[in-house]
Amino acid sequence: MATRVSILGATGSVGRSTADILSANRDRFSVEAVVGGRDAAALAEMAIRLGARFAAIADERSLPALRASLSGSGIGSAGGEGAVMEAALRPADIVVAAIVGAAGVRPTHAAVQAGRTVALANKECLVCAGAPFMRDARAAGATLLPMDSEHNAIFQALGRHRPDEIEQMIVTASGGPFRTWPAERIAGATREQALAHPNWSMGAKITIDSASMMNKGLELIEAHHLFGVPPEALGVVVHPQSIVHGLVSFSDGAVVAGLAVPDMRVPIAHCLGFPERLGTSARRLDLASIARLDFEEPDMDRFPALQFAIDALAVGAGAPTVLNAANEVAVAAFLEGRIRFGDMAALCATMLDRFGAATEAGVLESVEAALALDAEVRAATLSVVGTA
Amino acid sequence: MATRVSILGATGSVGRSTADILSANRDRFSVEAVVGGRDAAALAEMAIRLGARFAAIADERSLPALRASLSGSGIGSAGGEGAVMEAALRPADIVVAAIVGAAGVRPTHAAVQAGRTVALANKECLVCAGAPFMRDARAAGATLLPMDSEHNAIFQALGRHRPDEIEQMIVTASGGPFRTWPAERIAGATREQALAHPNWSMGAKITIDSASMMNKGLELIEAHHLFGVPPEALGVVVHPQSIVHGLVSFSDGAVVAGLAVPDMRVPIAHCLGFPERLGTSARRLDLASIARLDFEEPDMDRFPALQFAIDALAVGAGAPTVLNAANEVAVAAFLEGRIRFGDMAALCATMLDRFGAATEAGVLESVEAALALDAEVRAATLSVVGTA
Repeated sequence: MATRVSILGATGSVGRSTADILSANRDRFSVEAVVGGRDAAALAEMAIRLGARFAAIADERSLPALRASLSGSGIGSAGGEGAVMEAALRPADIVVAAIVGAAGVRPTHAAVQAGRTVALANKECLVCAGAPFMRDARAAGATLLPMDSEHNAIFQALGRHRPDEIEQMIVTASGGPFRTWPAERIAGATREQALAHPNWSMGAKITIDSASMMNKGLELIEAHHLFGVPPEALGVVVHPQSIVHGLVSFSDGAVVAGLAVPDMRVPIAHCLGFPERLGTSARRLDLASIARLDFEEPDMDRFPALQFAIDALAVGAGAPTVLNAANEVAVAAFLEGRIRFGDMAALCATMLDRFGAATEAGVLESVEAALALDAEVRAATLSVVGTA
Repeated sequence: MATRVSILGATGSVGRSTADILSANRDRFSVEAVVGGRDAAALAEMAIRLGARFAAIADERSLPALRASLSGSGIGSAGGEGAVMEAALRPADIVVAAIVGAAGVRPTHAAVQAGRTVALANKECLVCAGAPFMRDARAAGATLLPMDSEHNAIFQALGRHRPDEIEQMIVTASGGPFRTWPAERIAGATREQALAHPNWSMGAKITIDSASMMNKGLELIEAHHLFGVPPEALGVVVHPQSIVHGLVSFSDGAVVAGLAVPDMRVPIAHCLGFPERLGTSARRLDLASIARLDFEEPDMDRFPALQFAIDALAVGAGAPTVLNAANEVAVAAFLEGRIRFGDMAALCATMLDRFGAATEAGVLESVEAALALDAEVRAATLSVVGTA
């Protein structure tokens, strides 16, 4: 029987790659629901192409355009936050959670609470609400499949080992476009320079986070929650070629690593096929033609965002929530030209300082509490940077 | 309850590393039997240190010395081929099969036929007698744990995947001491030059095979039998740092690799602890301090032994048996100064040619048939190179 898949965040980068893999494996999958943000035309086209039963668009104003595009297709549609939740809860064997940012937390949480198998590409579920999100996932018997290239590589490397058998867990970082730049030049980098990622084609938010290395810090926080390893066992190694994505080392000195060319179709296909393997047309890794892989320590002085994230993870409680919310607003302000690249880290530091009380135990008693803190920090950060 | 271990080939390089790991984990293991070749003093010392119940020495002339050294210890002892077989068949949870060369086949085969879990470091079981050895292992329900660093890395990378999910399986090669040498210089290399391996400290036979890259060819033959992948899915990549030992790639483009510093204690500990993990004092892998990993295609013109092995694997039947026997005699002759380095490959080619009938199906109907062919080829090769 075909595996039923729903895609939350269908019109984004991960969503589109997911749709490509589903299209190429029509005999194995049927599509239950697709969820988009604002782009009605793209969402309707995908829904029709994949033969989805239901399409939901977050922005209610786009619903008429969606309905018009779906007219005669027999595909159901709805708009607004309730429609997104309905899509997340429709019966599916795999829910692909690829809505970017805090907006992805509630629908993904709903799917998890329904005990679904969730292929997780949204970072905020774990960064903003890690502890309660994982507690609810365990309680509901949900299965999480990490779809990020780094966490997916670690998931593949981990096999059946328990967290207590792991000595170290490492995510690699490309180092982004500013890997070799001096600090002063990074501080004044333009939007275009920051968006020019050397290896990966991704959305704007994550590309900026890669340039600041905040992305890698957020990934450490995710890894902590996903794999249950303590903060001190987590590390980052800079690896400019982005071929080795994650490594797990064991108490006997053995290390198992996940590799692939930088192509999101690889981790997406792994999650969709798990525990079997799908075929993809991703370029195959040829180490001899790549010839050389380099590794170096990350430079915390030039990339303070990474150190902030490591510190926030060590502090625990709501500190990662504060950092993530402040950062999301800071990135938007940078993309809109309202602050400099170097101001983003400073803004995060200010907010971590201002919301010191968020580091008290119990502040993240639920996913809703985490989202409330998130909203509070966003508002406070916005009041500092102003709006466009 | 302690895991009972027997070590066949206890006084060799792998046997001594095994003993070190057992000594460091006394609470988890008890030692049933240790088997040595000729060195009675070393075997007795190890038997006493490990608290073994039984010590067997292959060379009967060394038995009086062994008995003398064990006097008063309460450790049983015996000598000759029958004693080695007895040791292999004593009750043990893990039999470490580390006797080097064709001499290791019969005792390892006996342990496998008794349905034991065998940690396999002897190459000849699979290279000389692969098909019948594996058939008998399956029939007896024996478990094979690959102890070679390359096959162990692949075993760790493989997880629970089936052979038909594997797109490619790669063993890496250091390239040995002659990786950058021109062909003419390799042909005239001295014993000392060939024994100077850049990364690994191993026995003389395998070190010479590393220098000629025959070792890597034999490993492909082993991988074919151990993991059930077809010859065309197997490959070799030269990797001078010997950090990545083996890789498995899947149909979705994902690659999982086994890494470690070059230290035999890592794969040995993995086998002894499997499916759990032991602790070892092996140096930990630090990619940032290693900084750079290189990869290149092997050069079949300068290392013809590798091509011979690939061809023999493709031909199948007794071809690998012939190649391995001719090579073992050739290496001994080179180590004794009777032939040049470049003569070894030529000698293998001559024997593959002369024993063309060994490529007929059914020639390896049993492990004994493989050993008979092995003995025949050895005698023929010796008649060409003469004896010391």
